[in-house]
Amino acid sequence: MNKRLLLLSNSTNPDENYLSWPKSHIKDFLGSELKKILFIPYAAVTISYDNYFNAVSGSLKSHGFQIESIHQIEKIEGIIQNYDAMIIGGGNTFRLIDLLQKKKLLEPVRKAVENGMPYIGWSAGSNITSPTIMTTNDMPIVEPESFRGLNLIPFQLNPHYTEATLPNHGGESRIMRINEFTTINQNTYVVGLPEGSLLRQEGAQLYFMGKGNCTVFYHGTIPQLFKDGDDMSWLLKV
Amino acid sequence: MNKRLLLLSNSTNPDENYLSWPKSHIKDFLGSELKKILFIPYAAVTISYDNYFNAVSGSLKSHGFQIESIHQIEKIEGIIQNYDAMIIGGGNTFRLIDLLQKKKLLEPVRKAVENGMPYIGWSAGSNITSPTIMTTNDMPIVEPESFRGLNLIPFQLNPHYTEATLPNHGGESRIMRINEFTTINQNTYVVGLPEGSLLRQEGAQLYFMGKGNCTVFYHGTIPQLFKDGDDMSWLLKV
Repeated sequence: MNKRLLLLSNSTNPDENYLSWPKSHIKDFLGSELKKILFIPYAAVTISYDNYFNAVSGSLKSHGFQIESIHQIEKIEGIIQNYDAMIIGGGNTFRLIDLLQKKKLLEPVRKAVENGMPYIGWSAGSNITSPTIMTTNDMPIVEPESFRGLNLIPFQLNPHYTEATLPNHGGESRIMRINEFTTINQNTYVVGLPEGSLLRQEGAQLYFMGKGNCTVFYHGTIPQLFKDGDDMSWLLKV
Repeated sequence: MNKRLLLLSNSTNPDENYLSWPKSHIKDFLGSELKKILFIPYAAVTISYDNYFNAVSGSLKSHGFQIESIHQIEKIEGIIQNYDAMIIGGGNTFRLIDLLQKKKLLEPVRKAVENGMPYIGWSAGSNITSPTIMTTNDMPIVEPESFRGLNLIPFQLNPHYTEATLPNHGGESRIMRINEFTTINQNTYVVGLPEGSLLRQEGAQLYFMGKGNCTVFYHGTIPQLFKDGDDMSWLLKV
């Protein structure tokens, strides 16, 4: 089966309604056939799963999708196959991967997507599709069993990518952080996805869509820039 | 023996010379008796240990300190006791704790400081004196064996603390990140140290010194603010 991924940098741009910018992309990705969608809210830390789920389903249900949240299901073993697609939302990447590990969901999710189940993620939910969670921006508020991710793509994602820095602040810029990663991990590509942008995989094809530059880092090379509509399929073969 | 710690938020303020702002604090902390100092550069990722050490010793040697870097010593087992004080510099916290674990230095460093060896750290070097590294700002570019820190203080430090945010960017603010930590870790204090500030411990006494507000977070409470010269000794008993 063709692997199908919609990896969003972020859910919502500043001063816009919740899930506003990616809505048309989600609709186009899911089409009219895929009705029953599983939502996984485990990245949430400071909001309740109920509130998180209500925000997501409130934004997407007008398109005729039937969304259910895994936190409202009593026995989760084996349930993924009952759905047509899945959405993993953002929050804290360490919290998300820790709960997926503890609930033994990492392998079932990975297998379902490898077998063709469409996957939508944003922020932490996009981060974890990489080989590891090592290019997250999040604070390591819990210690997961391992940094291994879903490994659905062969490169690392950095969501909320920005080259902006705080004035009069000496902390590392995002570029410095990613350069630290590529210095230690010299054989791994890192893709910086600015807010309001996404990667869409359809089998052997990968495209960048949205605002700003998709910035690709690799040790010892100058970062490569890509823009809306660019074919990034070469990244699936690295 | 009295525990003695000088925990700096950062090495250098923007547009200032390297180690400029903390120099007088370091001099006062070490006094004129402590001459032989061990430097540990393992947090460095994108600069060489030689360059890092040269910058640090170049800045401090005019005060008559004799500084040696651990990376220039062939056999490091048991060497800590040959020194009067130690400095652990900043960089990447995950890299630093990973190398301290791999080189089996975590316990010797902890014991030496518990037994009275003065400790100076900045950024990552301050972070690791907490019970865990869970309030670092750094990217998890390597996977350490464990998130456990030196546990020399009973609370978590967040260096480079700032309440500033990037305009038109939806990523989490520092306050949101620390609130995520205290939501999951409800019995742990987090101390935000702005750049240009420090905590100094002398046995049972702890003081905040420097620019801006020292901001103390605890789950379910309003953050408490402290300023230059404030006695923070109560934090040693939490």
